[in-house]
Parts: sequence; structure tokens; C-alpha cells
Amino acid sequence: MVEVVTPSLPVDDAHRLHTGLTIGVDIGGTKVAAGVVDPAGRILATTRRDTPADDPHRTEGVIADAIRELAADYEVVAVGLGAAGFVDADRSMVLFAPNLAWREEPLRAAIEATVHLPTVVENDANAAAWAEARFGAGRGEDYVVVITVGTGIGGGIVVDGNLVRGQSGIAAEIGHLNVVPDGRRCGCGLQGCWEQYASGRALVQEAYELANASPAMATDLLALAAGRADMITGPMITQAAQAGDVAALQCFDEIGRWLGRGMAQLAAILDPAVFVIGGGVSSAGEILRERTLRCFRTHLTARGHRPLPDIRMAEMGAEAGIVGAADLARVTR
Amino acid sequence: MVEVVTPSLPVDDAHRLHTGLTIGVDIGGTKVAAGVVDPAGRILATTRRDTPADDPHRTEGVIADAIRELAADYEVVAVGLGAAGFVDADRSMVLFAPNLAWREEPLRAAIEATVHLPTVVENDANAAAWAEARFGAGRGEDYVVVITVGTGIGGGIVVDGNLVRGQSGIAAEIGHLNVVPDGRRCGCGLQGCWEQYASGRALVQEAYELANASPAMATDLLALAAGRADMITGPMITQAAQAGDVAALQCFDEIGRWLGRGMAQLAAILDPAVFVIGGGVSSAGEILRERTLRCFRTHLTARGHRPLPDIRMAEMGAEAGIVGAADLARVTR
Repeated sequence: MVEVVTPSLPVDDAHRLHTGLTIGVDIGGTKVAAGVVDPAGRILATTRRDTPADDPHRTEGVIADAIRELAADYEVVAVGLGAAGFVDADRSMVLFAPNLAWREEPLRAAIEATVHLPTVVENDANAAAWAEARFGAGRGEDYVVVITVGTGIGGGIVVDGNLVRGQSGIAAEIGHLNVVPDGRRCGCGLQGCWEQYASGRALVQEAYELANASPAMATDLLALAAGRADMITGPMITQAAQAGDVAALQCFDEIGRWLGRGMAQLAAILDPAVFVIGGGVSSAGEILRERTLRCFRTHLTARGHRPLPDIRMAEMGAEAGIVGAADLARVTR
Repeated sequence: MVEVVTPSLPVDDAHRLHTGLTIGVDIGGTKVAAGVVDPAGRILATTRRDTPADDPHRTEGVIADAIRELAADYEVVAVGLGAAGFVDADRSMVLFAPNLAWREEPLRAAIEATVHLPTVVENDANAAAWAEARFGAGRGEDYVVVITVGTGIGGGIVVDGNLVRGQSGIAAEIGHLNVVPDGRRCGCGLQGCWEQYASGRALVQEAYELANASPAMATDLLALAAGRADMITGPMITQAAQAGDVAALQCFDEIGRWLGRGMAQLAAILDPAVFVIGGGVSSAGEILRERTLRCFRTHLTARGHRPLPDIRMAEMGAEAGIVGAADLARVTR
């Protein structure tokens, strides 16, 4: 193990990095959203553009435009880019971004050359998780696991106050934790990944199967979807569950069950103080939290000999990606 | 997240801690083994005693005796204790040690009061893993997962050059990663834990079942065990496998298969550079490594978009616990 040496920034630069404003950019397959963020994680201004996702170089132009627009009005010391893809451990290259047509793209160099500000690249899920851990539901804690339950499951891990990036920069691929050996097929090529059982997609699939198998049970859900099982969406299931619909609640039983099981696995490995659940599905709030907690408790190893980690719902909302990327621009490793 | 502040040791003390000799003590249910260790991880002297496991206070006396014996001949600056149990995050208290009759035992204070040397307490599996990561098969790497495959599965995790202890000091309980939902019963109270499928106990169980179901297939194994399936041991299976016995190799197929699957899960979460496999079962060497690697590859998420972590066999032997505990006494957090 080599000694960890903090890169020796001149003291003035390090101070500016900690006290100045930074820009965070959340680069998704459809939108580029950027914001000016202060050291307390507050957003002072934002701008957004459409992503020309099929053209990597035009995407870089759009990112640079957004940064220049914000930097014209604010004195900014650094830029953090959150990209939906694998980012290398040096925080400079996008190795692979399925929805952005980037393959081994030297994004840091491209943006730095255009905007003349120190820039780092982070995985977007890591960036959003960092925002939750530092300013949101995990603030004040050194050991946090953030689970973003959207269409799939993403997330980020904080150990000892630092984001865990891993050797190749692709740690915290928690959606691909195996929960059922040789189980449901996953887009990653494996079978039985967590996100096939506990994600928004799994929730919708559950409702679809239930409504198909037993339309009488799913009257309320079908009413919301104009009578078509294949038109039921996640927000509809949440709405029906909040109104007390038994079928919708049953769908959440299933998602909570698997969410709790996977979290118990993460607890055995990481022993966090707090789990934060975010993403679209987390808008179900207590309906989801309560079911998840029940199952988490049952499947936690050495329960009774350890404090139970807290399970909290995310607080940062859709701008977590901007805030996290901006704040990670302050971190020198 | 609070800022991580390194406890402010006076400069001279910090220097002595890094350059002086320390004592490591490996406290097991049957033996207390202690050694004087230099900063390069070399053992200069050792001593051992039987553990009076049913009497926590006599055990403390035995530990103190061993330390005093070694400290009489060497100038020692600190002591690290590796205990088979849950240790709190402050490295001072043994929360629960099933084989040592310790419950919330303030071990650090008890030893410091007797031997008058700065003392830290670590989990024994973490200590042994630290030795492998720092001086053994993982040396030079910042992201290491050590898997100790003995009767059960233990291990330790190094992230960014530091041991991961977790919020409560009980991270890296990797033997209790779930690999089969509602699978085989585990001593921890859960079902389907990794150590029920990929440990020495699982290997022996596999051989036992095979020999019972099909004695003709297991002729060589049964010959080693005086004809009794219930007398087949791990070392016998390794010996038969190394001699090319098909039944014994089949048992390793099964263990390697599950070992690889579990490791793929750890890789998705932690993205290590190296996995180190140690413990008694690792004496099977390449027989185990090859089978594990094959299955690990198949179950690694995002394979093709990431470098494959290395899988190495442990190098430190039985004294890893002493070396690791001694070296962790140098680490100030």
C-alpha cells in the first residue's frame, strides 16, 4: 500500500477551492444541467441545455457553453462534471457512457481547454450520492450508502468521509449486486441483479403482472392507466398506494422486501451509519421505508450485536447531481 | 460528514510509532500468540500461551504476560491486539467475542493499565487481512479485499490504503454476504450466507454428501478417511484433489463456483485491484484459484468495460494476525 499523499496544491489555491464557488454539471442522456454552487452546497444559479447525445463532440460544446454562461456572472474556481457512465480513477476520462456515445473520452482535457478552469469528471450517481451524504440526509455522517432507486438502481458509498471510487473508478455499482443466483436477466449481461428486483422497473413489472393475472384485484391501478396493464407507471402505483389501494401496496411489499435484503448485504460489507434512499421510487416515502426497514432488519447479520443503521429518505431532490459534482470539484483526490 | 482530523500526536511520538518496534497479539479461542514486529512487517520474536477462554480476566492476564515477556527484550512503542470478536470503532472495546467470553470488555484500558504501552484493539480477521494487504499478496495496492477461507469465511477490506472498519467497527463481515436467498442456515441466524457455500466447512460437507451418495465415486477420499464419509477432512480433500482425484476436484468445483460468485458481488461494490484468498482452504492453491477465477469472470458486472481484478493466494501464513495487529498499532485512526 502506498502512502496517500494529498496532491500538493499551493496553499492559496487549496484555500480558494474550499471557500470559492464551483460549477457542477449533470450530464444525462437528454439534458445537460449546470449550476453555481457555494461551499455549503447551495445553488446560486442554474442553466440547462438539451444533450445532443449522439454526437460526443457537440455534447462537449454544449457543456462548455453552459459553464461559460454561468462563469460570466460568478467568480468560479473549479468545475465538476457528473457523467452517466464509467469514469476512470483519475477523474479525467469517461471510459464508457452507453447513452452519451462516449468511449474513452478525455472529457476533462476537452473542457479544461475550452473553459480554462480546473475540471474533474465524476460518475453521475456518485456525484448525486455525494451531495446526499454531505448536504442531504446523510450529512454529519462518515459512513453512508446512498441508494438511488429509479428505473434501475444506482448509488454511491462514503467510507471514512470519502467517496469510494475503487481501483478503476467504478465502485458502487450496487444495482448489480446479485440477489438471486441465475435470476432475472439484467442489461449488464448477468442474471439476478438487485435492480431487477427492487427498482422502479421492477415495481412497474410487478403491477403489470398483477393486473394481468388478476384484473379484479387491480381495479384502482387499471383505472389510473385507462384500463391498460401495460400503461401502468411508477407514479400511478405510488399514487394508488398512498390512497390505500391493496394491489399497489402489494407491489411495494415486493420492492421493499428486495430493497431490504440488498441493503442487509451492503451492511454486512460496509457497516454504514446511514442508508439514504433516493430516486423516483423514493417519492413513496414511508410506504417504501417501512417495508424496506422491516426486511432489512430480518436479514441483517449479527443483529443484536450492532446498532441498527438508520434508513432515511433522500432530501436533495433532482439537483443533487449538480451539487455533488460541484462539491467534488473541491476534493483534491 | 465531519472533517477527518488525524489525532494530533506530538511529532516525536508519531515518528517513533512509524519507525519503532511494535507488538502484535493474536487472541484466539485456544491460543494467545504474540510477536515483536518491525516497520517492514518482519517478526523478530514470538511467544505463545494457552487461552483460558472461559475467564475473560485471566485471558487479559495471559495477554499482558506475553507482552511483558517480549517487551523485556525489545524496546517497543505500541501494542496491537487482534481479537476474535466484534471490536468497536474506537479500537478500544471488544463488544462481543463468542469464543472468549468477552461482552463489552474494555480491553484496551485493561492492557494499557498493566503494560504501560499505547494499545489498540482490532478484529483478528481485519488484522490478518491488513498484513496481507500491506506486506503480503496485496502489497503496493490501495484497493484490496482479503478473503480468509477457513472453517467459515472472514476477511478484511482496504479502500484508498486504509482498513475499512465501518461505523460500528464491524465492516467486512463478508462471510455473511447472502448468495442464496433463504438458502442454507448459518450460525449468524440468517440463511444463504456465503460461508455456507464456499468455506472449508462447505467443502467437507460436499465431500461427505458425495461419498454418502456415491461411495464408488469417492473411493480415494474414503480411503484417506478409513472408509468413513464423516471422517473426511479439508486437508484430505486437498490432498486427493492434488493427486488428481475426480471426486475431490468436483468438491473444489463447487467451492470455487461460489467463491467466484461472491467475489463478483464484492467487486461490484468495491472495485478492488486485488483479491487475496487465504485461510486453510487456500492451501489447495491453483486448484482453487483457477476454479474461482473462472466463475468470478462469468459473474462480474460490466466485464469488458473494466480491468479484471487480480486474484492472488495469501503469502503471510499463520502469523498474519500478529503482523497485522502490530502494524495497525502504528496507524493513528
